[in-house]
Amino acid sequence: MEKKYYVGIDLGGTFIKGGIVDNGGNILVEDKTPTESEKGDVGVAKNIAALTEKLLLASGVDKGSVVGVGMGVPGMIDSKAGVVIYSNNLRWKDFAIGETVSSLTGLPVKIANDANVAALGEAKFGAAKGKENVVMLTLGTGVGGGVVAEGRLVEGNKSAGAELGHSVIVAGGEQCTCGRKGCLEAYASATALIRDTKRAMEANKDSKMWEIGGIEAVTGKTAFDYQNSDPYAKAVVENYVEKLACGITNFANIFRPETVLLGGGVCGQGDGLVKPLQALLDKELFAGELGPQVEIKIAQLGNLAGLLGAAALFM
Amino acid sequence: MEKKYYVGIDLGGTFIKGGIVDNGGNILVEDKTPTESEKGDVGVAKNIAALTEKLLLASGVDKGSVVGVGMGVPGMIDSKAGVVIYSNNLRWKDFAIGETVSSLTGLPVKIANDANVAALGEAKFGAAKGKENVVMLTLGTGVGGGVVAEGRLVEGNKSAGAELGHSVIVAGGEQCTCGRKGCLEAYASATALIRDTKRAMEANKDSKMWEIGGIEAVTGKTAFDYQNSDPYAKAVVENYVEKLACGITNFANIFRPETVLLGGGVCGQGDGLVKPLQALLDKELFAGELGPQVEIKIAQLGNLAGLLGAAALFM
Repeated sequence: MEKKYYVGIDLGGTFIKGGIVDNGGNILVEDKTPTESEKGDVGVAKNIAALTEKLLLASGVDKGSVVGVGMGVPGMIDSKAGVVIYSNNLRWKDFAIGETVSSLTGLPVKIANDANVAALGEAKFGAAKGKENVVMLTLGTGVGGGVVAEGRLVEGNKSAGAELGHSVIVAGGEQCTCGRKGCLEAYASATALIRDTKRAMEANKDSKMWEIGGIEAVTGKTAFDYQNSDPYAKAVVENYVEKLACGITNFANIFRPETVLLGGGVCGQGDGLVKPLQALLDKELFAGELGPQVEIKIAQLGNLAGLLGAAALFM
Repeated sequence: MEKKYYVGIDLGGTFIKGGIVDNGGNILVEDKTPTESEKGDVGVAKNIAALTEKLLLASGVDKGSVVGVGMGVPGMIDSKAGVVIYSNNLRWKDFAIGETVSSLTGLPVKIANDANVAALGEAKFGAAKGKENVVMLTLGTGVGGGVVAEGRLVEGNKSAGAELGHSVIVAGGEQCTCGRKGCLEAYASATALIRDTKRAMEANKDSKMWEIGGIEAVTGKTAFDYQNSDPYAKAVVENYVEKLACGITNFANIFRPETVLLGGGVCGQGDGLVKPLQALLDKELFAGELGPQVEIKIAQLGNLAGLLGAAALFM
């Protein structure tokens, strides 16, 4: 395989992380620099360009052998146009970041939403390496999503799709931050898990979970830690797993990926989370054993998913 | 635009429909022939090849100027391999229909699932003509689905995806034929609408809907017909619209298409169905007015969607 090189940029509100990546997904060098969003949109673009030059210098890769600069960007974007329509984090509006960074670096630039880019990174080089169809769910404060179909991101019009957390699974259910009731996010985020753990403790003063000290000490781990010794904790975990499995099965039927990847803090549970989810998915998947099966795995690239996925926008 | 020609084949259990289509989506000639599935898989392939020759002759199009033969096929298929893995309708198992028809006709062949192909037809030449991202739902005995993202079908592994009807929207709700509880299909199919109409009548002997004669006379139109004169009918319609809107909003957030198309018998309601759905979608869509909007429309190609979509597999 002929070696090709790519610049991957993970643009965050605080830091710009970057790396030089080859077509095997190896990161030759990586570095970061403060975003300095107070310098305005062009100021940040200049920081990205400066980081790119620094990375190229450190890697010894000639600019002429670089295919392009891929960037994962937070907020609402139009990936085709290379424009950030709106970013709350960066306080940007209608900024042609693609064109700007391209003219500063002399390299082609592609951008995509940061959550989508992370999914692409995992599909190309992480836990779903080599899979053509991948759905990734990130279980954190909210439930983020990214979808790869036939090796390419499914972004939707103006890259506004893949809001997988905002699918209703319980019509009229728990209030979601998006305004709807019963979204997957309102059941499967770490926030929802903590809410349900607190509710279980408050409703059951005899719960062993009170050993942690008080309601303020509850985390996304609490119910999992006590599931074998406390029936209230067990019920919280069971409900969490059931609702998450419901969402996963929906996406399995909608996209029929080879792999569903889970990321975010709740995934620290490892097999303790994956095994019961897989059992429920296997039971509920459309056409059961007749169709292609879907495996659930924990994402493995962590913070590097964004950088590698950004580079992969050119692969 | 240089004229190119395509053969579109819509393979059903009873008839094989076919047409010669140009790249503007014009059907030069169309015809059909009995499927004769009792002749076995190769026998059916020969019928497809014979129909293709007949269509070419009738159209006067030279085989040399035909790009390929696109086929919409029922059942579980592997579109990349051109193989029908399993078709209940045709009683086929692991039949390489692509290769077989290609060697019989001397033309390249592409196949896809018939529901997906219909969605592609509507996206290329029907109610969503020119749109890059389209979700189609067919409201019939079940709820069928098809998805086009950036102009291409989202099929999933072994073309087993796009089972949009089998997304749970009411966890633990109505029993679905797929084994799960609370699927969109169990609320938004014509079958579900008829079930709910009958239930409303049986629970309310004073319902005006009894005017139709008896419970056996209920159709998917009954509740719509009486919604302005009977509160029970109104409640059935409202619940139907609300659940369907819930599913549509989910797909709008997941795929963020420009257009959601509705097909199937229930769509005879036209604006009476689309307007309340659109109002609910506009209210619930993620990011509201900040993001790109999604329009709901009724599919318009009817039976021709399959033939045109099949041809479009090569476009």
